[in-house]
Amino acid sequence: MKKGGTSKVNKVVLAFSGGLDTSVILKWLQDTYQCEIVTFTADIGQGGEVEPARAKARQLGVKEIFIDDLREEFVRDFVFPMFRANTVYEGEYLLGTSIARPLIAKRQIEIARKTGADAVSHGATGKGNDQVRFELGYYALQPDIRVIAPWREWDLTSREKLLSYAEQHGIPVEMKKKGGSPYSMDANLLHISYEGRILEDPAQEPEESMWRWSVSPEKAPGEAQYLDLEFKHGDIIALNGKKLSPARILAKLNQLGGKHGIGRLDLVENRYVGMKSRGCYETPGGTIMLRAHRAIESITLDREVAHLKDELMPRYAALIYNGYWWSPERKMMQTMIDASQSHVNGWVRVKLYKGNVIVVGRDSKTDSLFDPRIATFEEDKGAYNQADAEGFIKLSALRMRIAENLKSRK
Amino acid sequence: MKKGGTSKVNKVVLAFSGGLDTSVILKWLQDTYQCEIVTFTADIGQGGEVEPARAKARQLGVKEIFIDDLREEFVRDFVFPMFRANTVYEGEYLLGTSIARPLIAKRQIEIARKTGADAVSHGATGKGNDQVRFELGYYALQPDIRVIAPWREWDLTSREKLLSYAEQHGIPVEMKKKGGSPYSMDANLLHISYEGRILEDPAQEPEESMWRWSVSPEKAPGEAQYLDLEFKHGDIIALNGKKLSPARILAKLNQLGGKHGIGRLDLVENRYVGMKSRGCYETPGGTIMLRAHRAIESITLDREVAHLKDELMPRYAALIYNGYWWSPERKMMQTMIDASQSHVNGWVRVKLYKGNVIVVGRDSKTDSLFDPRIATFEEDKGAYNQADAEGFIKLSALRMRIAENLKSRK
Amino acid sequence: MKKGGTSKVNKVVLAFSGGLDTSVILKWLQDTYQCEIVTFTADIGQGGEVEPARAKARQLGVKEIFIDDLREEFVRDFVFPMFRANTVYEGEYLLGTSIARPLIAKRQIEIARKTGADAVSHGATGKGNDQVRFELGYYALQPDIRVIAPWREWDLTSREKLLSYAEQHGIPVEMKKKGGSPYSMDANLLHISYEGRILEDPAQEPEESMWRWSVSPEKAPGEAQYLDLEFKHGDIIALNGKKLSPARILAKLNQLGGKHGIGRLDLVENRYVGMKSRGCYETPGGTIMLRAHRAIESITLDREVAHLKDELMPRYAALIYNGYWWSPERKMMQTMIDASQSHVNGWVRVKLYKGNVIVVGRDSKTDSLFDPRIATFEEDKGAYNQADAEGFIKLSALRMRIAENLKSRK
Amino acid sequence: MKKGGTSKVNKVVLAFSGGLDTSVILKWLQDTYQCEIVTFTADIGQGGEVEPARAKARQLGVKEIFIDDLREEFVRDFVFPMFRANTVYEGEYLLGTSIARPLIAKRQIEIARKTGADAVSHGATGKGNDQVRFELGYYALQPDIRVIAPWREWDLTSREKLLSYAEQHGIPVEMKKKGGSPYSMDANLLHISYEGRILEDPAQEPEESMWRWSVSPEKAPGEAQYLDLEFKHGDIIALNGKKLSPARILAKLNQLGGKHGIGRLDLVENRYVGMKSRGCYETPGGTIMLRAHRAIESITLDREVAHLKDELMPRYAALIYNGYWWSPERKMMQTMIDASQSHVNGWVRVKLYKGNVIVVGRDSKTDSLFDPRIATFEEDKGAYNQADAEGFIKLSALRMRIAENLKSRK
Repeated sequence: MKKGGTSKVNKVVLAFSGGLDTSVILKWLQDTYQCEIVTFTADIGQGGEVEPARAKARQLGVKEIFIDDLREEFVRDFVFPMFRANTVYEGEYLLGTSIARPLIAKRQIEIARKTGADAVSHGATGKGNDQVRFELGYYALQPDIRVIAPWREWDLTSREKLLSYAEQHGIPVEMKKKGGSPYSMDANLLHISYEGRILEDPAQEPEESMWRWSVSPEKAPGEAQYLDLEFKHGDIIALNGKKLSPARILAKLNQLGGKHGIGRLDLVENRYVGMKSRGCYETPGGTIMLRAHRAIESITLDREVAHLKDELMPRYAALIYNGYWWSPERKMMQTMIDASQSHVNGWVRVKLYKGNVIVVGRDSKTDSLFDPRIATFEEDKGAYNQADAEGFIKLSALRMRIAENLKSRK
Repeated sequence: MKKGGTSKVNKVVLAFSGGLDTSVILKWLQDTYQCEIVTFTADIGQGGEVEPARAKARQLGVKEIFIDDLREEFVRDFVFPMFRANTVYEGEYLLGTSIARPLIAKRQIEIARKTGADAVSHGATGKGNDQVRFELGYYALQPDIRVIAPWREWDLTSREKLLSYAEQHGIPVEMKKKGGSPYSMDANLLHISYEGRILEDPAQEPEESMWRWSVSPEKAPGEAQYLDLEFKHGDIIALNGKKLSPARILAKLNQLGGKHGIGRLDLVENRYVGMKSRGCYETPGGTIMLRAHRAIESITLDREVAHLKDELMPRYAALIYNGYWWSPERKMMQTMIDASQSHVNGWVRVKLYKGNVIVVGRDSKTDSLFDPRIATFEEDKGAYNQADAEGFIKLSALRMRIAENLKSRK
Repeated sequence: MKKGGTSKVNKVVLAFSGGLDTSVILKWLQDTYQCEIVTFTADIGQGGEVEPARAKARQLGVKEIFIDDLREEFVRDFVFPMFRANTVYEGEYLLGTSIARPLIAKRQIEIARKTGADAVSHGATGKGNDQVRFELGYYALQPDIRVIAPWREWDLTSREKLLSYAEQHGIPVEMKKKGGSPYSMDANLLHISYEGRILEDPAQEPEESMWRWSVSPEKAPGEAQYLDLEFKHGDIIALNGKKLSPARILAKLNQLGGKHGIGRLDLVENRYVGMKSRGCYETPGGTIMLRAHRAIESITLDREVAHLKDELMPRYAALIYNGYWWSPERKMMQTMIDASQSHVNGWVRVKLYKGNVIVVGRDSKTDSLFDPRIATFEEDKGAYNQADAEGFIKLSALRMRIAENLKSRK
Repeated sequence: MKKGGTSKVNKVVLAFSGGLDTSVILKWLQDTYQCEIVTFTADIGQGGEVEPARAKARQLGVKEIFIDDLREEFVRDFVFPMFRANTVYEGEYLLGTSIARPLIAKRQIEIARKTGADAVSHGATGKGNDQVRFELGYYALQPDIRVIAPWREWDLTSREKLLSYAEQHGIPVEMKKKGGSPYSMDANLLHISYEGRILEDPAQEPEESMWRWSVSPEKAPGEAQYLDLEFKHGDIIALNGKKLSPARILAKLNQLGGKHGIGRLDLVENRYVGMKSRGCYETPGGTIMLRAHRAIESITLDREVAHLKDELMPRYAALIYNGYWWSPERKMMQTMIDASQSHVNGWVRVKLYKGNVIVVGRDSKTDSLFDPRIATFEEDKGAYNQADAEGFIKLSALRMRIAENLKSRK
């Protein structure tokens, strides 16, 4: 073990779910580093209670226990800003896991400062993106923090060894079940994800029984449902005319989307650490938000602003996917993205039906750039002079004409 | 009229559909320019016969009549290359109209050369993108060609004036109906589009009766259908194990997609000439192709290649949308896109169901970069050394640590 | 004449230099449009007095005459923001002409509002970029303004016709000389430009006698001169320890650069209207600023922020070159550029010698990210753990290793 | 020592300069890994003989010794392709060191295959970019190769320890001098670089005595020298009318540039491993090539092609700087860059004078897109219709007018 033993650690803030893995980590940290542990458990909308984590932590001898409801902060300061950019990783993935990590890292560092801890620890493995996302966050916010990543250090390299360690140390093994799923899962208000097992063969369709947040399109209601979304500065602020807080909006959209079979995704993605992996995701509310946000932007955003946003989006998405939320370049890009949203105000109507999110109307009393007098196929009373198009085309073509002329001169 | 009368034109190649508008244009060109007309009618999969255009042209006194079946060339040399880039304009539009124009322009110029014509003409209005797409094509391929755009020149500025001109000149007005649709429509093997009328209010949902190529998701079959697509160098070459030509593949995908309610789109887009306009599109086959192409790329394309393609795609899409297919920058980008596809070989399975295209499997015997031994959650026998991640993260974080350290020194 | 005669114009604000061309335009506007003229003459550092323009305008019957010293606004709100992005068009051109046009357009519109004018006019030709820059500014700021571009309207298509018109109408022809130069010139505090005549053959070297602001490197002093520049938020605020206003800084740098033969440029550039043109420029102060700004950024800017700025710069430069200063996309990009400059504080020392600007030192007490303890070739006492590099490299290489492995498996 | 001892290595191909450092490495590898060593010494134009390395290697007991003259391959397949993109890292650095590493890595792997070696080794430290460049190359070309980086493994962490190790093992210490320079240096046909010592304080000017390839501008001849460069497909093929091979061209340009004080650079750059470092470079020939290449492109390249190249260049430069020459994304970009150069044919005349490279003429008989009939300020006989500009500007302004109109309606 590279760092155990000799190098002194006094107090570690552990991101603690209360499940089997982080319970084993807690015990292992105590044994290996002979240090005090502070647990931190966050409600970011993963579902299930967070309070039981308190009892489990106490049972394992922890004295400083932090349990926080971060749902509003999560949606307001992380999910919404990300959606302002229509952010999608590799054409499809809505970054549900990626966007939660920076918040957890930030809160862990805050707790470390408050409790005088000199280290932080997490339960992410050495193969995934999450270790990077946690640790880039830690280091960016507290450069001298000591990071302990048990999965990279210990020799519990298989599930069997983990279970046997748990039994040896009296950690209740029924915790393991996580509801009995055989998949590696992660959830928060934005999504739930599945990895591992049968999914490790990308040629195979996932089993219907895997999905938890949404019905299949086949089982969704036979009747469509319409939904009005009101936007202010690019964020949704009301559903069907009712103002709601960010977290409540997303929770409601998840419920409606899930009911209509919306937001399932099955893809092979490129991890930052260099390999391809197959993941399945349910993002019901996010899927609705993305479509609706593009719709409200379609009438309120200038063309070139929209195009520039589209060109930068993949890079912004990769920054978040790779764990660079707290980097100066992400913050700099956010400045521009946020500036673009000042006129993104209005409403969008969508129709939800068996997996489909169909935009059926959009308008903005204050900021619509759609001018029917100009676009019309009917007589426009001089709003647009068709003769202008000739000059526009001729000068746009000039460089190509000169080049082609040259060829024929040769 | 700026150019009528004095400036001499000898022979004009007119893109002639045989419908009312281009018939009026034909007559108007004869009268205004006192010149000979060559008609060119292409089958690019718009549906309906092209042969009747011959009789109509003859009836209007045309001697040189060209009728070409360009369907295979259209899909092979225009649609497929575009799909290699996962091309989407403004996040949603599959560019069905845009991609057909360069082919028509090219063929018109070829015919002009063959027939010794000194001018070309088209039926696009002065407000839209199509005039730009046609004319940039003409000028790029034949810089000294004379272009006549009747809609920008004449005074038939309303439908009433057009009809009255038709009646005056003995042009059969029943042509006008285009099947009775009140919409401005365009179709080819890739899509059918609708503009105008009620669509000019983006707050209003289109009427169900407008759509022609697809049933609504509600009316689609209650049973899903699976489909296997085989890719070679990024293009689909077989459906369910059966090799087909490009045009046949797209026709078949249109039929299947349309049956399952796939590929409808309703959006407000930004035209190159500067205004926003609302369009509705049906692109059943294209919608399937796009999802499937991303899926095959997900296992065969290197991460950074994929990301670079994603970052350049919006610009490539705008080039096509704006009419720059024949520009040197589009050709240069195509070189890179095509080079990226050499390993994009394998198959994808999709499930079609009530508007949904769901990727359920993908594999490549020859080119899969998905290595289950590395991604696995199980013991990997040393294929990946988790300890490497620590150094990776630490150096990735270094610049942010230095910066944060600096802050705390201040 | 397309617009003369029938369409009524009441009052026109003319950008008036007092030279021959704009005097002829003034007269021509009066005659053609039978309207009142308001003249606007700005001192943007072009050199020479602006007051004589008042007498000339009066002499031609103008009642409302505006003469403004815009030098500080020009440098503070246009030149400096542009230099924050290290802006260079096509790898070389410092955009001296381009950056002045938006200010003039803005001021003309302000005057039009103040004087109740319904039109504006400028002296730029129909072939150049300046017409675009002026008019995009006018339209962006006052969409219903009437724009009169005499060079595109009148029939004074050669210099001879212009001179004969001037003589006919009693406009003093000695004005023409502009100091006797045969070149088409433009000057402001940032640069002076030359076009036309012998320069129209890009194979020919310009004559030494053409250059006005700088000596040749050959004639520059044999002794180098050192200069200390202090930066705050990316802008220079002091020279050799002496705080100066933006315009004074640039004027002083022009004087020093010119003395040392710095800032000459001879290039063929691509105009927005579609042709290539050859231009020669002297930008002594700007050339020094650019080098120095990159140097101060090199120690204060994060790597990824710097790289993102570099990647976006060519587009930002093209926006300015093409006349889109007042566009929403330029403003959006500026938000990001300005945000990047908050830590760009410190000083740079440059050495000026016979055409060379050599950076010889840079430091920032408050914001240097250069940490000698880490970069050192000497023992670093653990500031950097070299072992981290192995993991960094291995994971960075992973995707390429997997791909190459695949090849060898085939 | 992490890997010494237990893990077996049979044969190592060492990049061997014959200097002190790589001689110590050779000895250390023999002792630590008890393995056979193959030395590889390349002439890439670093200056000095390579043959003496043979005797030194023999003296240290090496049986398989490879000495290759790679100068032509280096310039033809690495330097020239890079210059086609006008490649500059962080606005200034011409990538002299970066571009040589991929060639050395490739040759080492070839030798490893030929000699049946299972490992490769290099003398780059754990703090720099070169380790990354070497190793990414090794892994990309031979994914299962074992890499030994002594500087990251051994405990010879200071120069004193290294010298003492050398003495202990009978390695002649006079080798150390590298001509007596106190700097860390690297040289090849493209450049020579200096790091370390006084340079570790970026506020300090380098000593004149440090520079080796160029005289100072002060000491350069008082007479300018003109030079004609002929380009074919973007590469220089002749100087002053004389055809020369790639390596001979670069050598000649280095000699001429160095004589005229051209190509010195002093900058702080961002290393891939996360820290800033200060480097000084002499790139006399490269500096001339870059200016000349931009000049020939200025008359032969389409505007949008040129702009797209400029926008992608910083990323291409970072790929090379970071060591990704052999990556699929670099190769993909190269396809596009090379495609852009097919018309980059013609000649450029430059004037060399005391540190300045001044472009004074450029022309292309076959590919010039500069059309004087269009750009001229004189009467153009209808080549360009100035009236076209009005429509061009109006439609370009339309979206901004609509937006501003909206504001005033509010």
